[in-house]
Amino acid sequence: MLDLVIRNGLVVNAGGTQRADIGVAGETIVQLGRDIAGATREIDAAGLYVMPGGVDVHTHLDLDLPGFQTAEDFRSGTVAAACGGTTTIVDFCQQRHGQSLREALDIWQAKAAGKAVTDYGFHIVVTDMNADVEKELAGLPAQGVTSFKLFMAYKDAQMVDDRTMLRTFDVARREGALVMVHAENGDAADYLIEKAVAAGNLSTFNHALTRPPRVESEATGRAIALAEMAGAPVYIVHLTCGDALDAVIAGRRRNVDVIAETCTHYLFGTQDDLARPDFEGAKWVLTPPLRTRKDQELLWQSLGNGTLSVVSSDDASWPFEGQKRQADFTRIPNGAPGIEERMIMTYQGVNRGHFNVNRFVEIVSTNPACLFGLAPKKGAVAVGADADIVLWDPEAETVITQSKLNHAVDFTLFEGQKVKGLPRCVVRRGEVIVENGRFCGATGGGRFIRRSRYRR
Amino acid sequence: MLDLVIRNGLVVNAGGTQRADIGVAGETIVQLGRDIAGATREIDAAGLYVMPGGVDVHTHLDLDLPGFQTAEDFRSGTVAAACGGTTTIVDFCQQRHGQSLREALDIWQAKAAGKAVTDYGFHIVVTDMNADVEKELAGLPAQGVTSFKLFMAYKDAQMVDDRTMLRTFDVARREGALVMVHAENGDAADYLIEKAVAAGNLSTFNHALTRPPRVESEATGRAIALAEMAGAPVYIVHLTCGDALDAVIAGRRRNVDVIAETCTHYLFGTQDDLARPDFEGAKWVLTPPLRTRKDQELLWQSLGNGTLSVVSSDDASWPFEGQKRQADFTRIPNGAPGIEERMIMTYQGVNRGHFNVNRFVEIVSTNPACLFGLAPKKGAVAVGADADIVLWDPEAETVITQSKLNHAVDFTLFEGQKVKGLPRCVVRRGEVIVENGRFCGATGGGRFIRRSRYRR
Amino acid sequence: MLDLVIRNGLVVNAGGTQRADIGVAGETIVQLGRDIAGATREIDAAGLYVMPGGVDVHTHLDLDLPGFQTAEDFRSGTVAAACGGTTTIVDFCQQRHGQSLREALDIWQAKAAGKAVTDYGFHIVVTDMNADVEKELAGLPAQGVTSFKLFMAYKDAQMVDDRTMLRTFDVARREGALVMVHAENGDAADYLIEKAVAAGNLSTFNHALTRPPRVESEATGRAIALAEMAGAPVYIVHLTCGDALDAVIAGRRRNVDVIAETCTHYLFGTQDDLARPDFEGAKWVLTPPLRTRKDQELLWQSLGNGTLSVVSSDDASWPFEGQKRQADFTRIPNGAPGIEERMIMTYQGVNRGHFNVNRFVEIVSTNPACLFGLAPKKGAVAVGADADIVLWDPEAETVITQSKLNHAVDFTLFEGQKVKGLPRCVVRRGEVIVENGRFCGATGGGRFIRRSRYRR
Amino acid sequence: MLDLVIRNGLVVNAGGTQRADIGVAGETIVQLGRDIAGATREIDAAGLYVMPGGVDVHTHLDLDLPGFQTAEDFRSGTVAAACGGTTTIVDFCQQRHGQSLREALDIWQAKAAGKAVTDYGFHIVVTDMNADVEKELAGLPAQGVTSFKLFMAYKDAQMVDDRTMLRTFDVARREGALVMVHAENGDAADYLIEKAVAAGNLSTFNHALTRPPRVESEATGRAIALAEMAGAPVYIVHLTCGDALDAVIAGRRRNVDVIAETCTHYLFGTQDDLARPDFEGAKWVLTPPLRTRKDQELLWQSLGNGTLSVVSSDDASWPFEGQKRQADFTRIPNGAPGIEERMIMTYQGVNRGHFNVNRFVEIVSTNPACLFGLAPKKGAVAVGADADIVLWDPEAETVITQSKLNHAVDFTLFEGQKVKGLPRCVVRRGEVIVENGRFCGATGGGRFIRRSRYRR
Repeated sequence: MLDLVIRNGLVVNAGGTQRADIGVAGETIVQLGRDIAGATREIDAAGLYVMPGGVDVHTHLDLDLPGFQTAEDFRSGTVAAACGGTTTIVDFCQQRHGQSLREALDIWQAKAAGKAVTDYGFHIVVTDMNADVEKELAGLPAQGVTSFKLFMAYKDAQMVDDRTMLRTFDVARREGALVMVHAENGDAADYLIEKAVAAGNLSTFNHALTRPPRVESEATGRAIALAEMAGAPVYIVHLTCGDALDAVIAGRRRNVDVIAETCTHYLFGTQDDLARPDFEGAKWVLTPPLRTRKDQELLWQSLGNGTLSVVSSDDASWPFEGQKRQADFTRIPNGAPGIEERMIMTYQGVNRGHFNVNRFVEIVSTNPACLFGLAPKKGAVAVGADADIVLWDPEAETVITQSKLNHAVDFTLFEGQKVKGLPRCVVRRGEVIVENGRFCGATGGGRFIRRSRYRR
Repeated sequence: MLDLVIRNGLVVNAGGTQRADIGVAGETIVQLGRDIAGATREIDAAGLYVMPGGVDVHTHLDLDLPGFQTAEDFRSGTVAAACGGTTTIVDFCQQRHGQSLREALDIWQAKAAGKAVTDYGFHIVVTDMNADVEKELAGLPAQGVTSFKLFMAYKDAQMVDDRTMLRTFDVARREGALVMVHAENGDAADYLIEKAVAAGNLSTFNHALTRPPRVESEATGRAIALAEMAGAPVYIVHLTCGDALDAVIAGRRRNVDVIAETCTHYLFGTQDDLARPDFEGAKWVLTPPLRTRKDQELLWQSLGNGTLSVVSSDDASWPFEGQKRQADFTRIPNGAPGIEERMIMTYQGVNRGHFNVNRFVEIVSTNPACLFGLAPKKGAVAVGADADIVLWDPEAETVITQSKLNHAVDFTLFEGQKVKGLPRCVVRRGEVIVENGRFCGATGGGRFIRRSRYRR
Repeated sequence: MLDLVIRNGLVVNAGGTQRADIGVAGETIVQLGRDIAGATREIDAAGLYVMPGGVDVHTHLDLDLPGFQTAEDFRSGTVAAACGGTTTIVDFCQQRHGQSLREALDIWQAKAAGKAVTDYGFHIVVTDMNADVEKELAGLPAQGVTSFKLFMAYKDAQMVDDRTMLRTFDVARREGALVMVHAENGDAADYLIEKAVAAGNLSTFNHALTRPPRVESEATGRAIALAEMAGAPVYIVHLTCGDALDAVIAGRRRNVDVIAETCTHYLFGTQDDLARPDFEGAKWVLTPPLRTRKDQELLWQSLGNGTLSVVSSDDASWPFEGQKRQADFTRIPNGAPGIEERMIMTYQGVNRGHFNVNRFVEIVSTNPACLFGLAPKKGAVAVGADADIVLWDPEAETVITQSKLNHAVDFTLFEGQKVKGLPRCVVRRGEVIVENGRFCGATGGGRFIRRSRYRR
Repeated sequence: MLDLVIRNGLVVNAGGTQRADIGVAGETIVQLGRDIAGATREIDAAGLYVMPGGVDVHTHLDLDLPGFQTAEDFRSGTVAAACGGTTTIVDFCQQRHGQSLREALDIWQAKAAGKAVTDYGFHIVVTDMNADVEKELAGLPAQGVTSFKLFMAYKDAQMVDDRTMLRTFDVARREGALVMVHAENGDAADYLIEKAVAAGNLSTFNHALTRPPRVESEATGRAIALAEMAGAPVYIVHLTCGDALDAVIAGRRRNVDVIAETCTHYLFGTQDDLARPDFEGAKWVLTPPLRTRKDQELLWQSLGNGTLSVVSSDDASWPFEGQKRQADFTRIPNGAPGIEERMIMTYQGVNRGHFNVNRFVEIVSTNPACLFGLAPKKGAVAVGADADIVLWDPEAETVITQSKLNHAVDFTLFEGQKVKGLPRCVVRRGEVIVENGRFCGATGGGRFIRRSRYRR
């Protein structure tokens, strides 16, 4: 006898839509079909889409910087994720200078263990490369850590030079990992910030002016050129603008395996939001900065036509009160929450005609699962896959507001947005963890996922 | 009780791979799962891929030109298709000057009825536009003919001017059709041919010299610009080269919905094949002409990275003896067979690492099915879909040779090619029509498919 | 003894600036130097630039269309030109359907003879190609007509098809002529106009909407591709926008000899001028239409960096009253005056820092002279050149207004523009024809110039 | 009475050609005209071109690296330059780590003083930036040093980071200097070299493989992006390939003031020359490396169509015997001689139809003079200019061979090349210093030129 049957729904995968019931045994989907026999638990999904649970591959839970601490830890953050339809996250585990990668991973494992309610993995952020670290890095894919992250900005902190990039790409090619790059020219941003500060230009809008599109597109092009020379694939995180997109297109035309992601906030905000009064602009200080309406439109189109592959949240839940609420743009911690809103906001692209619901599933679940070694267990409603399922009501409407959200941080960028299309019920490996928009699972039910190696 | 169960195979769809059995009732797939109950007929697919039947949207069966007649009619051509793994074709129904579209379609329906062994549809080729034809055209999508074809070459025959193109795009946008374009500048090709002829350059290689990449890329760019101005999608047939691909990329960057197809022969031949001795070069006279090794490589890459969406055959089975075997390049009928070899040859891209098997299914079946209104019945092994299934043996090897093929025409372009990966068994709407590489179905078992309207 | 010496000026050529006196004997400059001996007539050019007379290679004097007649004939038009600093024009001589080129040229010679006060030449506009015309065309360079003009717009009037373009390019390559192209896709413009008319959108602003940048850039790219296939150079007239400029840049990158011109009005107007009230917008109806501020800025930059080579006037002096003053945009004759204002307005680019005064001379005189076979007699202040000289006061300021201009037409597009830099005195082949801003020469003093063949 | 008259020649300037005599008083041209009065010395230039002396802005005379010393010092090098038609050079004065710019300049002034026979200036190479150096740099333009050079390659030697580049561009913008950039990604080259060495690939051809076009084009694009962000012009030295050219074109399209130079050897050699036997390949080890035939063709075309502005020699006269003659490519000093051959070899582009003789003068004399603040004294045969004149015989033919050259180094890259077009006589500030191909002036007759600030 099956443990769970979901009946009468419309199964929506990246590859197509089908009317079928789903049979789950234990943690796994074992059947799709018409008129599946009875089960211990049955859910009626009439009028709902039955989609694979979301996969968010760009989160920063339980992160601290000098003077700052995110509001979300792995419990609150993954509860928020789950309530938004996401059942797997991959978080950034950051090496500190002088630290081994093992130490860093141990710290991150400790942050997540017993807390996370979604499944999870880690990308390793390399900030301090040397021969030992290079050797360690080469060993990580075998441990299920199959993606490395590099920063081209934030000098004297995360920023690495081209030599470190090349060494990292080299390891990645040999070992089957995917290198993710934060593509901004740190020296250029620093130069422009110094000039702004020297001129007394400290208002929030200067965040955009000091990190203009060229800062991003130069680094994007360079990252792709370095990947090309090392023969490795490259994943550009949080792409924001047409200039950077052109670098991606050009690289792909030269047969470089370039993948690009954008984030929820770039699909809704513009640089004008930085000029909002009463410190509201500070909420929108995130990096790379918000761009123009024209760039925003291009991002939607590029999700529609396949040029962009993934929407992530880049969730960084610095509280507004006490942390982001500052007048001087150089002092505001960069980043904003979004782990809970990601799927709901991205779904608005379906309502607006930018893409259909299959493509929606692809960019919030299937693509990130495939790219980061989570498939075939994650990213599809299919026989043999984990029963990570979200029942999505395409007709449900609401207005996004802080009081209704489940995250711990004290604001949402999307306050007041009217949305249509909401998760109704979320299943993680066969267990219902969200019902009626509220988390109903057990703390710590999430599991570390050993991800498989990257293959194009 | 199920009519057919296929057991132990690896189900390969565009969206992913799963180990599952398939249950068929009548013409339809009704179940995917582990341990499906028994059926009237069972097929053991152990070691095989279970893939959706191929969809070939570019064929010219039973076509005649003054002095020429294709070897394949709808029986022999679809038998060949089926033996190659293809279960649906969409053929070009060509309006003659002065003819109504209804007349043209009636002729094509008569050609196919009672003969075709695969399912089939028709694109309408508009060659003589006027107000009546425009009105007729607008009515075709409601009759299941949801794609129109235009030629930018062959003056005084199929070639239409920009005004006709704009009117056709206009109808397509309003009525939900997809316009397919043969993109070559006919005046430019004619000019270059006249110059070659005047200079006495008549050898087969001049076919390539008189239709250089610029002839194709200019027209490709123009077709996209016209589609853009009319607000319609456009499908570029048989794209061959980097210059034309750049036009596609540029159009997509401007948010034009451009789709591009290439054909099997461009993935294997180059213009050097036109210089083969003993009239062999004449076999390779097809349009646009074969290009360079570099272009060929780019086509494979572009199938891999998503820039190209479809591989079709452009099957035009002019016999070598009596028709193509000519010394003067201007007298050789343009086109070559390929309906049977298409999937087998394209599959070699999997062996060579250009793409994985899911992407293979996407470009030979799922994409053409979705673009031309055949989904969700065609293009996927899924609950509710037609049971059009090919069992593919990824380890089977053979050498392509005329004597082993099932088509009626007297040669194959791929003579002597060693290949790995072959269809073992083909099911069309629940009926096994190919076993052990030979057709075993009934003549005329194919059905005209009313295709649904184009939606991005 | 010299006939004329110009002393104390700063000689400004395209190649550099030098402090030198100029000695003229008869019609020719015979000396440049310090302390030249005395002459019959001496002019003190202290504080002035001594520049070569302007060359305007895009004028439509004494032109009629059904219902319309330009205000300027060859007397008034060349007087206006001279007062603006221009000493040579090349006007468009248009073949009518069924007419031989000889007949057309005879008509234009008759229009100019005894009237023109500047030197002049003719481009031949081919509108009706056949074997006889092709033969005639081949003979024109030997008669000093070394440039041909083709229109890609205005169907059933001037528009020619790609075949005619290729034949014309072919003649041009063989005979050393330069083909000028009006690059707009006529079918596309007609399609958009029909749609606008059908929707009742007749206001002047629709002129811009129905000839969008893509109408121009498609044709620009096509003209370049056709020139490339014929192996001929091509000169794009009145380029207006970034999209068309990209086609020029791409062609040049492929080693096509592409030259591009813009016109005065594109440097000052934008499409918003079309929306001016009280029929004022009608004055700005010219083709291709005015574009955006961003395009305008790009044109200035492209003159500065060498991407654009020439500023012409495209003078077409349809009177406002009785002709252009109309509400329905489809009825307004396309074109506007500018022959007198061209150099003054273009000079503002020097004041604004877009280019220096040498580059100014290059784009209004030296380049057009070299490209159209007028050099070395025209386009430079040099020993052996015609003494076509303009003394330019870089400090003089005025406000452009109709009452101060010398042209015959009843308005200026540049009404109210404050300008700095004005011609003080104009010498044509050794004869002073403008002093203090007024014409002081004899009617008919201009001469037909047999131009030499095009050489890159 | 004039000191020198050159009669009967054809004066060839960038801006045009004129038949005129030239009158010189002291060091200066004071007259151009027909029938100039007598002079102390007269030269008959019948049948010759009278051109401005060449300007070579990229030389490395009297340079040493650990273990290496150029064969040419400022005497032998400038004698060779003069014999090749060049009358002004601008050499690179290189700051060593820890050194002030003043110290560096003093060293270079000492190297040249009393030795140089052509006029000369210095670019300053910034290798060690700090606040003091930045201040010093700002003061250099006032001393006539108006160009700065930066290296993006050679880590731990000349290579600077993006921050130093931005600071240098910033000074340049404020002070009117032009920044020259050696654009190669040093980290990438080092990475590729390490991999080659590790694989035991040490043959000379690996020089090309370890510095592929992407190494150059990435850095070119980055340099332009940094210049853009600082609002400064940028001069790309020794551009070699289409990929880098595309970066230049793209920058110019965005309104960055980008100028690009190529060097003589890229116009004649290809990477295949690196594979020459008997250590001959070592002669061709220079940086960036030689490219393909297709790139070479593009460089010629780009000189013809204006995309490239200057041909320099990049003369670095490491002797073959004892220095360059080595098997291991990593040990061969990079660079080759060419100061004497530059104008002769570049002139072959006139013979081959790539550009006319005016354009030749522009790229070897006028453009470098204008860009580097030497105009109007240098770069033109014009009233008021220095009498730096080369009499060029367009019909003279020879075969380039080491024994006939005047340089001190022991080989020429162009050995055996048949050339047409040679300098006959060279005048430097009114003094004849080369006659019949041999130097006849006095050692040390050259003068340091205080160059004026950069202006677009």
